[in-house]
Amino acid sequence: MNKAEKLSVVSYRGTRDFYPEDMRIRSWIFDRMKETAMSFGYEEYDGPMLESFELYAAKSGEELVNEQLYHFFDRADRHVAIRPEMTPTVARMVAARINDLSRPIRWFSFPNLWRYEKPQRGRLREHWQFNVDILGSDSIGADQEIIEIAIQVMIRLGAGKNDFRIHISNRRMLTYFLHQILDLPEGIWGGVCRAIDKRSKIPHETFEEMLRELELTSHQISELGRYLSLSHQNIDQHPVSESDGYGELRQIWNGLSESGLDTFCTLDLSIVRGLDYYTGTVFEMYDLAPENRRALFGGGRYDNLVGLFSKDRLSGVGFGMGDVTVRDFLEIHGLIPNPEPPIQVHVALFNEELRRSSGAIASLLRSAGYRTTLQLDPVKLAKQFKWADSKSIPIVILQGPDEKKQNLVQVKNMLTHSQQVVSERDLVETVRQSLAGD
Amino acid sequence: MNKAEKLSVVSYRGTRDFYPEDMRIRSWIFDRMKETAMSFGYEEYDGPMLESFELYAAKSGEELVNEQLYHFFDRADRHVAIRPEMTPTVARMVAARINDLSRPIRWFSFPNLWRYEKPQRGRLREHWQFNVDILGSDSIGADQEIIEIAIQVMIRLGAGKNDFRIHISNRRMLTYFLHQILDLPEGIWGGVCRAIDKRSKIPHETFEEMLRELELTSHQISELGRYLSLSHQNIDQHPVSESDGYGELRQIWNGLSESGLDTFCTLDLSIVRGLDYYTGTVFEMYDLAPENRRALFGGGRYDNLVGLFSKDRLSGVGFGMGDVTVRDFLEIHGLIPNPEPPIQVHVALFNEELRRSSGAIASLLRSAGYRTTLQLDPVKLAKQFKWADSKSIPIVILQGPDEKKQNLVQVKNMLTHSQQVVSERDLVETVRQSLAGD
Repeated sequence: MNKAEKLSVVSYRGTRDFYPEDMRIRSWIFDRMKETAMSFGYEEYDGPMLESFELYAAKSGEELVNEQLYHFFDRADRHVAIRPEMTPTVARMVAARINDLSRPIRWFSFPNLWRYEKPQRGRLREHWQFNVDILGSDSIGADQEIIEIAIQVMIRLGAGKNDFRIHISNRRMLTYFLHQILDLPEGIWGGVCRAIDKRSKIPHETFEEMLRELELTSHQISELGRYLSLSHQNIDQHPVSESDGYGELRQIWNGLSESGLDTFCTLDLSIVRGLDYYTGTVFEMYDLAPENRRALFGGGRYDNLVGLFSKDRLSGVGFGMGDVTVRDFLEIHGLIPNPEPPIQVHVALFNEELRRSSGAIASLLRSAGYRTTLQLDPVKLAKQFKWADSKSIPIVILQGPDEKKQNLVQVKNMLTHSQQVVSERDLVETVRQSLAGD
Repeated sequence: MNKAEKLSVVSYRGTRDFYPEDMRIRSWIFDRMKETAMSFGYEEYDGPMLESFELYAAKSGEELVNEQLYHFFDRADRHVAIRPEMTPTVARMVAARINDLSRPIRWFSFPNLWRYEKPQRGRLREHWQFNVDILGSDSIGADQEIIEIAIQVMIRLGAGKNDFRIHISNRRMLTYFLHQILDLPEGIWGGVCRAIDKRSKIPHETFEEMLRELELTSHQISELGRYLSLSHQNIDQHPVSESDGYGELRQIWNGLSESGLDTFCTLDLSIVRGLDYYTGTVFEMYDLAPENRRALFGGGRYDNLVGLFSKDRLSGVGFGMGDVTVRDFLEIHGLIPNPEPPIQVHVALFNEELRRSSGAIASLLRSAGYRTTLQLDPVKLAKQFKWADSKSIPIVILQGPDEKKQNLVQVKNMLTHSQQVVSERDLVETVRQSLAGD
């Protein structure tokens, strides 16, 4: 094969190779998420990466299906799609056991999801998403619990109240405002919501222009502006405080205050999110770093999750948190910890005759719980130490023929460049102390 | 939407939904595998689920590419495939950093892999595979290490020497035998290997018939039979013991004996594995259960992993262990442990007024590390206890208004049906003792 025929080593556009140093960070992030979800009694689930195309065609947004979905026909001509989101899968799974699952159902997962997008900062074709949902409860306590989990995940990742803020609103309250207060016809609610959703990304004039095109009067436009700027201090005086949606929002806010978590939250009535999906509480997490002021992820309450599959009704609250944006966030805030050394001890090999006893030392350390490599070939010792150094291994063990005779081993601390000779019996304890920095 | 229009709740053919009870088992198995690999200093990596079609067309077997590979064209007409195996991805990743990765490279991963197959016992279209490889070492110590890891994984999963056996052979030794001893022309080695590979699944006459068709003489056929039945006790007397391949095999066997692991192993010269792939050591893990006597997984040494991508040469040793066969194995041998309760404590809610203090109790228990649910609505207490029972939650905490006044809580042990009233201060310790069965 000549050079021109070699294949490219570059991964498919918009995807990532996770070399060990990246994988460690991904695992560290996922472990913190998993611990948090489990501490609230949530259970992990997973589903297949391919689903029937119909699952998305029926309910996912048009842009997603027409422009972003990976779909094709299998060898038996089944129309299948690579999952672009997890909700249709969780809906299918819950619908299949709708009568057997005791409610509320508290579930989480870490699916990899695919969307055909132009790769850019924070957006890739393959990403992982931490999905957390509580299903089958209409209690507003469920909404509060989901927001609390989102905050606790951020705290467990090391973020503080100067790093992020959760913006909370309620879709029922917004509908009440548009309908009962502004008296707008239902046909334009969607258009107004889209304008609100875009507001922070466009000039104020463009926002008003969009509203005028929807035939809002100047009075309605200014009333909408006043509504959008309400805070938890003055919303009680506004007529929207008569609505059920506001009652829900107030209850969540009180609950968060009681838990001391309101410090991480702000009322933000411009939060809308997926138009056809959310029906009550909606929230988004914002990065407070000036260079990254944007929504990291969001979630909310939705109704009728399983409607595609059965005549049963099941509501839920949940959020999805992408690995790309979370890692960006942690990097910006300097929250990615120094990794633990993947290898803690290297057992050197003095010569071929000592392979057996060096192997036994490595086995002993592994049994004691230490991540231990054994030198494969008795190359020059200097080379063995150099390799251990290149892998940042903190401890190297060596047993030469003299030590072997007396059941002794050399323990070299590669960080302090100190070394000691200890009996084989004391080896595990010596390694423990060296790693603990004693 | 009428009933006839509802979508099916069944997952795509040959795939599995992992409900929490299945996911727990998968996680338990993967955690044991991961611990084992890490204890040997191996590091986890991952790659994208889609790769360029060429990656498989170039090297994977014809059956795989023509009949089993999922492949299609993306929206920019790139020919892509869903990974059916991990080796091409790991080869690409290593080739991309061939000069930066210090060797030996010790890596593992848990990819989900896709093959279009007729679903049957032990074979699905989507499965997960634990991949372990050591790359960039020609040392026979690497072969021994990989076999040792395979054995230690099985031990950590609870399997003993009556449950499984590793069958070991060497491809160079087989080639030496066919070439130097039987004096067969190179053109038929592949055919003979295929016959050997099939031998255990076909009648002895069919096996001999296959060899006669390849024009082996009766003498050659009987010599081959004698070769295939050699054991580690009598192989030293056979002329094949002159070969380098035998030297490697002997060295591995001695190493395994020294570590006391030979008790899990057997010499089995009929082990061949992937014809175009393995070049030295080959091994397969066999289930010893009479109803399941078959190879669970296997691996071996291969040369020139990165040849598709660069002119560098890199050899390796590795194995891949599928989640479907491993779980079947564990079930047959009764090795799947009773799961830990996913929820350890449920905090009941006496009434709406006590939500704040009950929420604080739940937070306290979560901070102390206990997986804790909080009752969302103050429904009848009997209903709350019934729910906790349905979820097998061992402990329920209740604080009524009387307890609240005295900073007390009721701790109910759902297994022993006992209960005690303790001060809030002693709650965490009481829960710890109850869960420990003290």
